Amino acid sequence: VLSATLVGNAFANEELTALSADAKNWAMPTGDYANHRYSKLNQITKDNVKDLQVKWTFSTGVLRGHEGGPLVIGDVMYVHTPFPNNVYALDLNNDGKILWKYEPRQDPNVIGIMCCDTVNRGVAYGDGKIILNQADTTVVALDAKTGKVVWSVKNGEHIDGSKAESSTGAPMVVKDKVLIGISGAEYGVRGWMAAYNLKDGKLAWKAYSTGPDTEMLVDPEKTTHLGKPIGPDSGIKTWEGEEWKTGGGTTWGWYSYDPKLNLIYYGTANPGSWNPVQRPGDNRWSMTLMARDVDTGMAKWFYQMTPHDEWDYDGVNENILVDAMQINGQPRDVLVHFDRNGFAYTLDRATGELLVAKKYDPTVNWATEVVMDPASDQYGRPQVVAKYSTEQNGEDVNSTGVCPAALGTKDQQPAAYSPKTGLFYVPTNHVCMDYEPYKVSYTAGQAYVGATVSMYPTPESHGGMGNFIAWDAAKGEIVWSKPEKFSVWSGALVTDGDVVFYGTLEGYIVAVNMEGKELYRFKTPSGIIGNINTYEHGGKQYIAVLSGVGGWAGIGLAGGLLSPENAAAWHGAVDQGRQQGDEAQVVGTAGLGAVGGYAGLAEYTTLGGQLTVFGLPD
Amino acid sequence: VLSATLVGNAFANEELTALSADAKNWAMPTGDYANHRYSKLNQITKDNVKDLQVKWTFSTGVLRGHEGGPLVIGDVMYVHTPFPNNVYALDLNNDGKILWKYEPRQDPNVIGIMCCDTVNRGVAYGDGKIILNQADTTVVALDAKTGKVVWSVKNGEHIDGSKAESSTGAPMVVKDKVLIGISGAEYGVRGWMAAYNLKDGKLAWKAYSTGPDTEMLVDPEKTTHLGKPIGPDSGIKTWEGEEWKTGGGTTWGWYSYDPKLNLIYYGTANPGSWNPVQRPGDNRWSMTLMARDVDTGMAKWFYQMTPHDEWDYDGVNENILVDAMQINGQPRDVLVHFDRNGFAYTLDRATGELLVAKKYDPTVNWATEVVMDPASDQYGRPQVVAKYSTEQNGEDVNSTGVCPAALGTKDQQPAAYSPKTGLFYVPTNHVCMDYEPYKVSYTAGQAYVGATVSMYPTPESHGGMGNFIAWDAAKGEIVWSKPEKFSVWSGALVTDGDVVFYGTLEGYIVAVNMEGKELYRFKTPSGIIGNINTYEHGGKQYIAVLSGVGGWAGIGLAGGLLSPENAAAWHGAVDQGRQQGDEAQVVGTAGLGAVGGYAGLAEYTTLGGQLTVFGLPD
Ligand SMILES: O=C(O)c1cc(C(=O)O)c2c(n1)C(=O)C(=O)c1cc(C(=O)O)[nH]c1-2
Ligand SMILES: O=C(O)c1cc(C(=O)O)c2c(n1)C(=O)C(=O)c1cc(C(=O)O)[nH]c1-2
Repeated sequence: VLSATLVGNAFANEELTALSADAKNWAMPTGDYANHRYSKLNQITKDNVKDLQVKWTFSTGVLRGHEGGPLVIGDVMYVHTPFPNNVYALDLNNDGKILWKYEPRQDPNVIGIMCCDTVNRGVAYGDGKIILNQADTTVVALDAKTGKVVWSVKNGEHIDGSKAESSTGAPMVVKDKVLIGISGAEYGVRGWMAAYNLKDGKLAWKAYSTGPDTEMLVDPEKTTHLGKPIGPDSGIKTWEGEEWKTGGGTTWGWYSYDPKLNLIYYGTANPGSWNPVQRPGDNRWSMTLMARDVDTGMAKWFYQMTPHDEWDYDGVNENILVDAMQINGQPRDVLVHFDRNGFAYTLDRATGELLVAKKYDPTVNWATEVVMDPASDQYGRPQVVAKYSTEQNGEDVNSTGVCPAALGTKDQQPAAYSPKTGLFYVPTNHVCMDYEPYKVSYTAGQAYVGATVSMYPTPESHGGMGNFIAWDAAKGEIVWSKPEKFSVWSGALVTDGDVVFYGTLEGYIVAVNMEGKELYRFKTPSGIIGNINTYEHGGKQYIAVLSGVGGWAGIGLAGGLLSPENAAAWHGAVDQGRQQGDEAQVVGTAGLGAVGGYAGLAEYTTLGGQLTVFGLPD
Repeated sequence: VLSATLVGNAFANEELTALSADAKNWAMPTGDYANHRYSKLNQITKDNVKDLQVKWTFSTGVLRGHEGGPLVIGDVMYVHTPFPNNVYALDLNNDGKILWKYEPRQDPNVIGIMCCDTVNRGVAYGDGKIILNQADTTVVALDAKTGKVVWSVKNGEHIDGSKAESSTGAPMVVKDKVLIGISGAEYGVRGWMAAYNLKDGKLAWKAYSTGPDTEMLVDPEKTTHLGKPIGPDSGIKTWEGEEWKTGGGTTWGWYSYDPKLNLIYYGTANPGSWNPVQRPGDNRWSMTLMARDVDTGMAKWFYQMTPHDEWDYDGVNENILVDAMQINGQPRDVLVHFDRNGFAYTLDRATGELLVAKKYDPTVNWATEVVMDPASDQYGRPQVVAKYSTEQNGEDVNSTGVCPAALGTKDQQPAAYSPKTGLFYVPTNHVCMDYEPYKVSYTAGQAYVGATVSMYPTPESHGGMGNFIAWDAAKGEIVWSKPEKFSVWSGALVTDGDVVFYGTLEGYIVAVNMEGKELYRFKTPSGIIGNINTYEHGGKQYIAVLSGVGGWAGIGLAGGLLSPENAAAWHGAVDQGRQQGDEAQVVGTAGLGAVGGYAGLAEYTTLGGQLTVFGLPD
């Protein structure tokens, strides 16, 4: 008899499943298919973590925002960089000697159409290949041993000058396929998820986030939303006119996979244009969690967190899969999702049933609650507070004091889950905004934004722009919260040694115990927006992290937008001629509003691109 | 009665002398006026250096070759970068928080006329100001407290398109002046040394290396060469026609100062054009050590190490001043100079008398010896071996197997001197070359090279491209020699803890004991070409070093010249149309011959720009 797990393995990519089950490796960008970012390694413990030392370091040779983290498979570490997306294979047996490097050639024009820095969230491994998702949407499979190109395919069709499609997401290898998303919702890109054959790079399926049912790979009768069929042409009817064609709903975040259900999970980004007045309707299926059959791409269920977005609360954050979570006395196989909109959702991942939806920052104010009564016509919908409704306030009106800011209570920085504590460890933002939508017109290849945003630390709070929290997803409660000066833009790691790690925008790697007490802090060369991981080599546990300030929060530094000239040029490219006030406002509202909010970061760190590997004293 | 030392202090810049006498600081790029790079700090010793840990790190935000090192004055560290020559003031009391940063705007065209990477060897301190010598030859004085510009002056006249003057050297503050050199001997720049008033940046004096006596600030009767007056117009008569006008002799290396004698010391670079056939004569005063009165610039004595250079053996390396060295039973106040040409010279620094001239790598083969008999007409001259004479072999003939290569047995990487052992600790190259001179014509602003060079590890030796050696300058003997895989392109540091530190091109910081036994090795993010220094803060000794591979040895990586296209473009700009053979030759001979020789470096490191600070465990 095959156990459930073995059946799962048999269906999944067995090699990869086995590699990632061995805690010595860090074989997937997400650690495992469930996105736990939990490691069974326990040499480094809450008691000895204070003794951590830097063991070795590696400069990536590239500056700007370094998201994601290295893979470790056996004796080799694979390190990726932001644009131009170089990949290095480093020999762990030989002080990180470079076994091979891959330096793609890409049209640098793609830099200009990347909304939130030239980031890349990592390479994936499968079947002896390293899969790289380049900024210019080229997907390349490299021979893991030699770095030679095995196949190469173009996922997006066009960059600058036509459709402004770009890519930043980490691929996920599942079974015989590679899952790849797309970026560009700030440019009116109509998002999709694609699956390519791992073997030869041939397109297996492609599922759009908006548009006709056939192109969305939905069955209007069988694909459900909150338990009900979505009905025909939902991706067209919930938009005015042809707005769905520039409908956003890109897929630049993290993906998960449940081998038992054979479903993949991911979220879609904001609807095209940040001016809600311009696109009446629920704008389906932007801002939506999607569960799809990995073989066919057919959608099982959707859940739209923020219908008709008015704040840029992309729904792309990771979905963490937990089995048998006790909810109201029942064990449920769930998916936990910390949305940009400030609500943390727990759903039944087989059916998409909404189990919990609670604020994971009490200062979230744009909505009062998510309605949990299935009988209500508001079921599953956030209850918007009129004062903070940028749509109700209308075009050319500045809605002030909206919490969270556009970059959400959490953005791409992934949380970690410990099966030992049953808790989630969540890097968060603690930032509010003013948001003024205005009319824009769509031109292919150009920015399609239509809002002026400024950001600032949550008023009347601790003054900082972030918290690192522990969350109980069954109850929907914050267990503890540790304030940070800036948003925690790095991904967390939790280990069997009862330590939680995260990085800060100033560049500190921080270790805390299960009660949130700080145990260790070390300043790496540049701000950390990478995801911390761990591996074992030669019998010793290591902690690895990429430094390199950037991402949306760090775009002022990474994109040079703290300079008034560059900020003005940025507005020139984005604002369609709208006046932006004095120099301070021009700088403050550049980078989609992040530059002013995070300007203080320039006192703590500067651009970098380094790997730092920590270990215990010998 | 004033002691000699106090008289010295009174004449020198008292504040700076006091600051650099306090071992807690590292107040000058050279450590002290004598260029000892020796520290009295002794918490870190030969016994505990093995326990060193990385204490903090800082990314400079800039890639390519990071030469020089940070200054430490009290609670503030000043970090500089290669082009664009940013300067950071970091708060040592606050985890390296950025107190201020200065980001100059420079014409990026200067990058194209920097022969040997976009390096900068450091900022100087004096009178509350930080002096920055920018690539574009702008010299800026910044308020050390605020980073605000106090004064700014242009040292060179022109960059790209006219005279191709650039700058890389570290300024030296002496008394009320700032000494500043110039780069560009590969572009026919006529070199000079300039002194600017520390107070307001006004030019105090300017002394050319070639040309009329008045412009050279020499007295034909009083300025001596090997004890004899140099005679009138030596800087013109030793050249054919007007070649002295494009005569090189730039001053991009290190400077020293003797407060008692009130003399500054520095060397001049190669004569313009690497094709010796084109410039008959001794080409004075290229390749020359110069002793000048700091107040007036008037030359006291010269010593030309390599008359009529045929190999690009620039004479710019540091001059290390040692008092009362016992030579043949006599105490002599000497200057010790490890020349590119492979000879280490000990001279009386008051008179320029030649005391010792010996090979500091036994494989040096281009000359048999330097004649030491004052009665000989060859006195002080190296005896050239015909086989390795690129002049005698003639234009369009490839002289093979010349040792050392053009980058010398030592290049800019400064040695250290321990008064405790009386020995010099010297980072060296162990590289030979093939050199084929060819006819070139001078065009202002364009490369004026005229030789194709390839480099390789010294044949029939240990296979590596470098050694780290201990040298007895009284006897002219190697005491010990430690082989290294690549040239040791970083500056050394020796301490009262009986430890010598250096960095390697692979990125290791290495500590050895006084017998050359390795005690500690740690791999920093990128290749080290910076100079290691030490300071004390909060009662603890630290070791600081900049990583960032580049310089001439690392130009393949730093300038991207390992790519055939870029290598071909490099030749296009430098070779005046000469054919360079197949792709391998085009790459190998790019970067003035360094690219092929150091190609293997790409397996060990990649571009970076990081400060790493080490200390003992708490
Ligand atoms: O809508 C999109 O297509 C898109 C793409 C990206 C991206 O690819 O990085 C981001 C966003 N949106 C976005 O809304 C956002 O907050 C964001 C943050 C970051 C980052 O890496 O820090 N990227 C992105
Ligand atoms: O003749 C010159 O003007 C000049 C300038 C420089 C420089 O400014 O860096 C170098 C050289 N020459 C040179 O010959 C040389 O070997 C060299 C090495 C380096 C370096 O920083 O690694 N610079 C220079």
